[in-house]
Amino acid sequence: MISWFGRHGDGAEFPRARGRASAALPIDRVSIEALRPEPIAVLGQAAYLQLALFEALGRAASASSALPAKAALSASAGLVLAKHRALSDELRRRGADPATAMAPHRLATDAFIEKVAGADWYEALTSIYLTTGLLDDFFARLASGIPDTGERVAAIISGDNGMAAIVDLLSEGIAATPTLASRLAVWGRRLVGDTLLLARSALPAGPAPKERRIEPILTELMAEHTRRMDRLGLTA
Amino acid sequence: MISWFGRHGDGAEFPRARGRASAALPIDRVSIEALRPEPIAVLGQAAYLQLALFEALGRAASASSALPAKAALSASAGLVLAKHRALSDELRRRGADPATAMAPHRLATDAFIEKVAGADWYEALTSIYLTTGLLDDFFARLASGIPDTGERVAAIISGDNGMAAIVDLLSEGIAATPTLASRLAVWGRRLVGDTLLLARSALPAGPAPKERRIEPILTELMAEHTRRMDRLGLTA
Repeated sequence: MISWFGRHGDGAEFPRARGRASAALPIDRVSIEALRPEPIAVLGQAAYLQLALFEALGRAASASSALPAKAALSASAGLVLAKHRALSDELRRRGADPATAMAPHRLATDAFIEKVAGADWYEALTSIYLTTGLLDDFFARLASGIPDTGERVAAIISGDNGMAAIVDLLSEGIAATPTLASRLAVWGRRLVGDTLLLARSALPAGPAPKERRIEPILTELMAEHTRRMDRLGLTA
Repeated sequence: MISWFGRHGDGAEFPRARGRASAALPIDRVSIEALRPEPIAVLGQAAYLQLALFEALGRAASASSALPAKAALSASAGLVLAKHRALSDELRRRGADPATAMAPHRLATDAFIEKVAGADWYEALTSIYLTTGLLDDFFARLASGIPDTGERVAAIISGDNGMAAIVDLLSEGIAATPTLASRLAVWGRRLVGDTLLLARSALPAGPAPKERRIEPILTELMAEHTRRMDRLGLTA
């Protein structure tokens, strides 16, 4: 079991979650609520993350040589942008200015996006697919613990993020260039550590009792990550 | 009067349209219909143009240091993307594949976007504002001549293109740095020639009688361009 608080938090080596009994655990809502997510902080970080993912998708669309890929990635960018806007609206409903709420999360998010940018278009797409998936999962769970509006915010975050189009593009690439699979598998494993660290930054610094509440969530996140890797025929 | 077909078509020197009696002319629908716009060609070029403008807006959003500007430009990008998608839907309704219909227009559009990219963020925003305005005006008029669906397509193209946010950002910049105004005024004048050439490329190569039908449209486009320059306090 990996600790988010211990030395293994860099996630450089990651055990496979597949096949664990806990992979099928339902969301532990009691655990999440006990973490007492601070609404403005969670909404601000999630809103900025969607904005940064939108930009990454825009760059991938711009870099696409094939027009169908460009159009598909742009469509995905539109879906991610819609989530950013819906989260900004949630901030406004709470009387918060979205830009002010997003600002504290900018530096870390930008650094993360740069770190997982990848060496080429396929690595960039793999990053977007895997990190968007994991972080949407994570923030949806975390947001569900927000009092009153938690369900609604979680629904926004887990809405369609356009990743099906990316799976198609990656699958085509892997089918055409079989050596791509092993490179992307390595890349996919490397991403996880940084992605989990970003998620971790959304949680209050933890005394040991909190860690116990987070572990089941982490297990679920990893199981979902493994399923995403499987979908591309990659070994997590 | 500028000719789209003659030697002055490069628009390097552009007379001011402001104050002409013809600036208030209504759209000359009979003229447009007589041009017999080819639906798939017009839809394909307009759809790719919106996609390229979406990408330009995405780059401007990415390059924004201030978060409110980043969020505002991303929102504008979303509006432009929605137009691209609606035009793609119109192509599908006519049994055309959007990527195939857009492909012939890619090279010229990309070259245009690169030519008007500008030397910095403010020039890039000025380009987006002025060229989007002029080309939306133009393609809406041209599309209105498409049989049956012309009105609907024109309504898509003249829908909200998010340029109000850009006017705000440019106005703030000009207010803070007065020397910016003269630089952007020069840049705005330089843009017009290339923008009109791109519009011109959507029309069938013209014998003289067609030119007469186009001239009133050109006059209207220039009057609107002047009004957009005015909105920034720039002299067209």
